[in-house]
Amino acid sequence: MSISPVTHYQSLNEQTAKDLAVSLNYFPQHSELNCREIGDGNLNLVFHIYESGQKGIIVKQALPYAKVVGESWPLTIERARIEANALKLQRIHAKDFVPEVFYSDDRLAITVMEDLSSLRILRSALIEGEDFPHLSDHIGTFLANTLYHTSDYALHPFKKKEYVKAFSNPELCKITEDLVFTDPFFNSDSNDFEEELLPAVNDLWNDFNLKLEVAKLKKSFVTETEALLHGDLHTGSIFADKNQTKVIDPEFAFYGPIGFDIGQFLANLIFQVIARDADEARDEIIFHITNTWKVFSEQFSILWKESGDAYTKVDGYLEYILEKAFRDSIGFGGCELIRRTIGLAHVADLDSIDDREYRYSAKLCSLALGRELILRRHTIANMEELIDTVLKNVSQGRDHS
Amino acid sequence: MSISPVTHYQSLNEQTAKDLAVSLNYFPQHSELNCREIGDGNLNLVFHIYESGQKGIIVKQALPYAKVVGESWPLTIERARIEANALKLQRIHAKDFVPEVFYSDDRLAITVMEDLSSLRILRSALIEGEDFPHLSDHIGTFLANTLYHTSDYALHPFKKKEYVKAFSNPELCKITEDLVFTDPFFNSDSNDFEEELLPAVNDLWNDFNLKLEVAKLKKSFVTETEALLHGDLHTGSIFADKNQTKVIDPEFAFYGPIGFDIGQFLANLIFQVIARDADEARDEIIFHITNTWKVFSEQFSILWKESGDAYTKVDGYLEYILEKAFRDSIGFGGCELIRRTIGLAHVADLDSIDDREYRYSAKLCSLALGRELILRRHTIANMEELIDTVLKNVSQGRDHS
Repeated sequence: MSISPVTHYQSLNEQTAKDLAVSLNYFPQHSELNCREIGDGNLNLVFHIYESGQKGIIVKQALPYAKVVGESWPLTIERARIEANALKLQRIHAKDFVPEVFYSDDRLAITVMEDLSSLRILRSALIEGEDFPHLSDHIGTFLANTLYHTSDYALHPFKKKEYVKAFSNPELCKITEDLVFTDPFFNSDSNDFEEELLPAVNDLWNDFNLKLEVAKLKKSFVTETEALLHGDLHTGSIFADKNQTKVIDPEFAFYGPIGFDIGQFLANLIFQVIARDADEARDEIIFHITNTWKVFSEQFSILWKESGDAYTKVDGYLEYILEKAFRDSIGFGGCELIRRTIGLAHVADLDSIDDREYRYSAKLCSLALGRELILRRHTIANMEELIDTVLKNVSQGRDHS
Repeated sequence: MSISPVTHYQSLNEQTAKDLAVSLNYFPQHSELNCREIGDGNLNLVFHIYESGQKGIIVKQALPYAKVVGESWPLTIERARIEANALKLQRIHAKDFVPEVFYSDDRLAITVMEDLSSLRILRSALIEGEDFPHLSDHIGTFLANTLYHTSDYALHPFKKKEYVKAFSNPELCKITEDLVFTDPFFNSDSNDFEEELLPAVNDLWNDFNLKLEVAKLKKSFVTETEALLHGDLHTGSIFADKNQTKVIDPEFAFYGPIGFDIGQFLANLIFQVIARDADEARDEIIFHITNTWKVFSEQFSILWKESGDAYTKVDGYLEYILEKAFRDSIGFGGCELIRRTIGLAHVADLDSIDDREYRYSAKLCSLALGRELILRRHTIANMEELIDTVLKNVSQGRDHS
């Protein structure tokens, strides 16, 4: 694996971040600049630099380590290059849904990009019940365009293979391989869950049919170079308001199976279906789940017609690709439901439920649903049956709580 | 794609090849050296340099172009680096079945290796009816070891991804993508077949179920990085005698689906089943087909137990991997049968059959069998049923001729 020359690396602070912004001519010299570090400090520094009352810029810098729940381990800054290049490529194909990159420096692991601070992080806004009418139209379009245009159907074989190499991302993929596909299904130190869940977790760990199916999904994740994925497409990686949706943070980008991005996004919407108790509030989310797939598959099918690959003209091939993406999405979504409930990295959608009983029942529901999606991914016929499966699990969870 | 610095490149001739061998100290100065160019001249120069009556060395140099059936197109010499590195890696894991590399120079595209001139090229020896009692034990062992040891089950994820990049081989893969998976199934200029086959070929081109299944196999070839393949494992890439078997020429090496190597080898044995007219002579080959799979799957299963991957302990996972490899082998083998019959690069097994009627019926059999293997790869239960399918097609071919 190539290691970035960290000898040149120095981490920014609020003053040096401002100096950089001025030296790059984003602001006139002697501007009255504000600078706030707004990152979560686990993997990156994120500076918001602006003149009062005006749109500013974001300066993001990768740290040479990762910190999760107090633990820290070394991590190269190579991911800053991957993220900047993924943003640039995604913006070519899905301009409206990706922030503009103004500048990047691989040696300093710095990306200067569009200020999105007028938007909200989707996860927290959804938790507060905010409504995003265009969310699924936008994400469905983002998925169709980024995944199609980086696939073998759109690219010359040489270009595709050049991208597979350029976006080789062993360190960040290893995090997913461990935290999504492995640790939650074994009694690993990295797992994190309330003691009350232990009986259900033990059932999972002893379910060897489930483990076999997760092994197959992990194999797909580590071997199938279908398209350039975002790699971490949860609702915390999306900024939005009523009219705009922007997908950020593709530092996990790599060539993988297209159902992985779709499944992670759908699973993170499903957390809201599980967490919300009013039917109407749930219906908004269910609409987005259904509509994300509808928009993705329709737009992917339109783009498919542009392909120069002779086999894309063969009846049934597009349907085969979409069917595979659908089944993979269900399986990967199931893994996401489980790992976000009992693995290292949780979601606020479940953890922020104050009522203890309600929270446990929500988490048990997430585990049961995750398991069912993984095991039944080849037999769930369509999106309607997927929604029925989600709602059946949610209402069973309610009955037990 | 990285282009090798061809400015330093100069092609060798018999004199400069000898000079190189002396300057590298393989022979004393003023030795009485013989040098013969023994390559087919299409992609490489191959010099056999030796003192009379003694074992010598082979100096292989990639040419900056490819010549096939008179046509010539440019090709970088990058493949020489791939081939030398693949030989070195395969030799670590399957020492007995891979020639030793003494020296390599990527800029000159030169590999100096063990002299195998005491062995015969397997294809021509099989055509002449020579018997190789250990062939399938050796190739099964070669396959199990090279494929297992370069897979996700044996390698640390960082090492695996480093190899995927190092063995990215866009140019040579494109040749396979075109000549194996695409051109033979469409009316392409590169195809080459006798006019008498046209009705059968037209049937193939109009078989859209077949095209759909080939599209799926091609997708697997271009997206699934299961293991480092030889990439061109036909009987012309194998040197052998009664006791030894050496696999040469891995210039097509890349990370792909493990069934591809197995399927190409089996298909090239099947050409001998089709071509031979005596039951007993056929039985030898059928033994090797059955035994290659048996040895491969048994030895792969033994190596699997060494894996540190937690999922390899889950019941059913090994069986799933072997089942996939079996089905893929059948499908890829079917493609090889068809493309070697009507595509650009033929096999002497069929082309050298003198009797016109017998040759046509053999070729029609190869096409029909190839089609059946591709279409039925998911339903052929085991090796026994595969052999039955081969023999049924062969005997139907005989009845019609």
